[in-house]
Amino acid sequence: MPTTLGELARLVGGDLRGNAAIQLTGASTIDVAGPGQITLADHPDRARSLLASLAAAVIASPDVDCGGKPSIVVPDVHAAFATAVRHFRPLRIVQRIGQSPQASISPTAKLGANVDVHPGASIGDGVTIGPHTTIHSGVRIMPDCVIGSGVTLFPNVVLYENTRVGDRVIVHAGAIIGAYGFGYRQVDGRHLISAQLGNVEIAADVEIGAATTIDRGTYGPTVIGEGTKIDNLVMIAHNCRLGRHNLICSQVGVAGSTSTGDYVVMAGQVGVRDHVHIGDRAVLCSKSGVSNNVRAGEEVLGSPATPIRQAKLQMAAVAKLPEMRRQFRIMQRQLAELLGESLADDSDSNECAA
Amino acid sequence: MPTTLGELARLVGGDLRGNAAIQLTGASTIDVAGPGQITLADHPDRARSLLASLAAAVIASPDVDCGGKPSIVVPDVHAAFATAVRHFRPLRIVQRIGQSPQASISPTAKLGANVDVHPGASIGDGVTIGPHTTIHSGVRIMPDCVIGSGVTLFPNVVLYENTRVGDRVIVHAGAIIGAYGFGYRQVDGRHLISAQLGNVEIAADVEIGAATTIDRGTYGPTVIGEGTKIDNLVMIAHNCRLGRHNLICSQVGVAGSTSTGDYVVMAGQVGVRDHVHIGDRAVLCSKSGVSNNVRAGEEVLGSPATPIRQAKLQMAAVAKLPEMRRQFRIMQRQLAELLGESLADDSDSNECAA
Amino acid sequence: MPTTLGELARLVGGDLRGNAAIQLTGASTIDVAGPGQITLADHPDRARSLLASLAAAVIASPDVDCGGKPSIVVPDVHAAFATAVRHFRPLRIVQRIGQSPQASISPTAKLGANVDVHPGASIGDGVTIGPHTTIHSGVRIMPDCVIGSGVTLFPNVVLYENTRVGDRVIVHAGAIIGAYGFGYRQVDGRHLISAQLGNVEIAADVEIGAATTIDRGTYGPTVIGEGTKIDNLVMIAHNCRLGRHNLICSQVGVAGSTSTGDYVVMAGQVGVRDHVHIGDRAVLCSKSGVSNNVRAGEEVLGSPATPIRQAKLQMAAVAKLPEMRRQFRIMQRQLAELLGESLADDSDSNECAA
Repeated sequence: MPTTLGELARLVGGDLRGNAAIQLTGASTIDVAGPGQITLADHPDRARSLLASLAAAVIASPDVDCGGKPSIVVPDVHAAFATAVRHFRPLRIVQRIGQSPQASISPTAKLGANVDVHPGASIGDGVTIGPHTTIHSGVRIMPDCVIGSGVTLFPNVVLYENTRVGDRVIVHAGAIIGAYGFGYRQVDGRHLISAQLGNVEIAADVEIGAATTIDRGTYGPTVIGEGTKIDNLVMIAHNCRLGRHNLICSQVGVAGSTSTGDYVVMAGQVGVRDHVHIGDRAVLCSKSGVSNNVRAGEEVLGSPATPIRQAKLQMAAVAKLPEMRRQFRIMQRQLAELLGESLADDSDSNECAA
Repeated sequence: MPTTLGELARLVGGDLRGNAAIQLTGASTIDVAGPGQITLADHPDRARSLLASLAAAVIASPDVDCGGKPSIVVPDVHAAFATAVRHFRPLRIVQRIGQSPQASISPTAKLGANVDVHPGASIGDGVTIGPHTTIHSGVRIMPDCVIGSGVTLFPNVVLYENTRVGDRVIVHAGAIIGAYGFGYRQVDGRHLISAQLGNVEIAADVEIGAATTIDRGTYGPTVIGEGTKIDNLVMIAHNCRLGRHNLICSQVGVAGSTSTGDYVVMAGQVGVRDHVHIGDRAVLCSKSGVSNNVRAGEEVLGSPATPIRQAKLQMAAVAKLPEMRRQFRIMQRQLAELLGESLADDSDSNECAA
Repeated sequence: MPTTLGELARLVGGDLRGNAAIQLTGASTIDVAGPGQITLADHPDRARSLLASLAAAVIASPDVDCGGKPSIVVPDVHAAFATAVRHFRPLRIVQRIGQSPQASISPTAKLGANVDVHPGASIGDGVTIGPHTTIHSGVRIMPDCVIGSGVTLFPNVVLYENTRVGDRVIVHAGAIIGAYGFGYRQVDGRHLISAQLGNVEIAADVEIGAATTIDRGTYGPTVIGEGTKIDNLVMIAHNCRLGRHNLICSQVGVAGSTSTGDYVVMAGQVGVRDHVHIGDRAVLCSKSGVSNNVRAGEEVLGSPATPIRQAKLQMAAVAKLPEMRRQFRIMQRQLAELLGESLADDSDSNECAA
């Protein structure tokens, strides 16, 4: 639905600068926007890209120099641009579909009002689901799970027995909640699996990424605290207790029985060993290998993980180590001369300098 | 079902120490057990947590000082505690469901006695399944697979064509067995995939974690040896041959054509390159990057992986490297003075010391 | 179907060296081939394994010394051996099955000629699918996706709304395309998710591995360029733009808004941070942690990733660092003696040498 710049300015409640009659046909980011499209600039450093852009107009924050390009100035660029995108590409109206006859729903399951169950989903015995929850196709809910209201389970999510899911939780496609923990003891040369009597409890407002796995506790629950967000392909092992409002990025692995405080951030591909505690607001930088407790507020980096200031000094020192070795060899030779020694006899230093 | 401490002691066959009439309502681990619950203490170092615990009683091993808390003393704490947990939270009696009419089973598939096939599972042409095997909902078994007896395939597992699965194997939800190997050759600027004629063979008593992927061999099988246990989100590439009773932790990646002996342990996030051999009982510490053969019994750490004693010396030396650089600069200056050189002229050492 | 060496030589168009009447019953790789089987040798360094092999004959390239073993000599060993394997283990003839009545296909979806939809697949409203495409069981295609011709979606693949899939693309089982990006801003102590208005666009001839996840863009598309091949368990974050003919190995993670040129190679478990560019034909070695742009043609290694020559010098220097520390301490003592200082007073150097 084409529209004018003036109409769009009214729609997003912004300050129009330029010709209100300009016709717009779409909204795209700076690098791909074509003629007839509006783009966004959320930071002064976008000014140069904006000059090079083919876009006909821009939604910009007040501190951006738009270089004369027609603009709509707003305080929250992303909210306004999202409105513009939705104007040009309206959401398909999704009708509630109710309980599909092609789903498999146990007669002992209890579903609240306005629960949608898409074709090909399976809901086991004794499951309880709160109102306004959406169960997409291919979701497998095993017996005795308890699911809150306003929850979204995207296609092919699997919940093992007894999983608890809080209100407004979003679980993305292919995530697996409640599989057995990886704990064995060796008896007569064979690995015997430990007890698998616990479950997983996910508090309200948690989001869980695609193909992420969270294992059940041994005797009690593995816990994900309120408001915590977990990205794709993350592994949370048995008996872990994550606090509230953590951000756990993609491909992180947290080993068994580890706990975190609130507002912890783990960047991509971090690994945390078992039985440690990560304090409130700690930050684990990407690819860190964490083998000890981390104090509240601390930022760590590297493997083994080290407070970030120290870690950066170490990395800088390693980068210069080959040159330091070269100079070290020169010093060895000079010192040997001062001492009247023959370097040729000093096989150790030759080896070191090789 | 509430019970007394005395009844519980008889149930687990343990030695009662304290008031047999104490009423118990549940069983939980030390950190979460409340009043009226029994907990467990499997090691003398739990004594302090035990003192702080609200639990009414404890199942303990003989070497634990229970500090006067009523206790049941047993040699195998975990077995006894599992019995207690199951007493308070009995397992749902799972009835065999037979072949669900909502499953899709090829008329040419051959199923043994007492095979359960849950709603929404698909079983392809020519598949053979042994007795007492459970196929959960959403499992996809492609043509010509051969599956043993007593196997459990959890929801949404996928087996590509010709996969062999031994007796008593457990495959967790979302695991993908038998996808194409990642092998290409470049022809006229395009990547052409190599032959994908092999399959995956999984021996008896193997367990495979959630969302783990094992690719098929090029011409023959990728092999997982008897009793080997694999955690979640692990990647085993084409043509690998894992030995028996390995433990492969979460997010490990093993590249193509690599083989392992028996009782190998790979900790979390290890990567092993292609075409190497990891000997019997070798241990690859977490996050190691293994680019060479590892000898039987060897423990390696780091990336590139190094025998652990050496790796720890290197890590300790790197941790002290910034201080060593500082002292190195002092020595350079002292030596230059001894030699009557002017440091100002020695641009190299300035650079190094910067 | 047993056959003679002579018949097989004719079948693969190769040069027979040995007794044409030898009876063969199968084809296997060198390490597992038994008597009566033919094997392959694609490189002169296979001569020794060949001598030890029980195989009755070999398909070999002209430069291999077959040590007298009956052979078929061909220029392209792998093509010829694949033909032999297929001769002994013919492919099951897969009949097109059409649209299974056990699939759930929206009445507003448009399917081209000869599209197969297996039992238990779901196809949403407004989806378009080109001719000769195969949708395996358990695939979930959400509304408004557009899929090309000759595409294969293996079991349990999930495509979120509006995903674009080019011609001849192969997506392996359990891959999740189009889940929400992991972008939040904190408001009043809670993480609010950013806009999720974009989609994923996959160009022609791309292959995507099992359980790989590719997130949708914020406003526009996340793009995978033509001919790019992605292995299993890979994470491609929101707004990424991968170029053409990249090879992305298993367990790689690429953070948001990062772009690549053409023919980029990322080895296993590489991590690339957000908002960087990896130039044409760059190579990121396994486990690298890439936090800056990488120039075209450059090969990097390590974390932080460094040009490979430098990275190898650094790794070699670190390996020798413990010995260098030992010698450093000796030099400190010698220098202190020359300067007439007492080492006992020099607590710094003691600490360093500890």
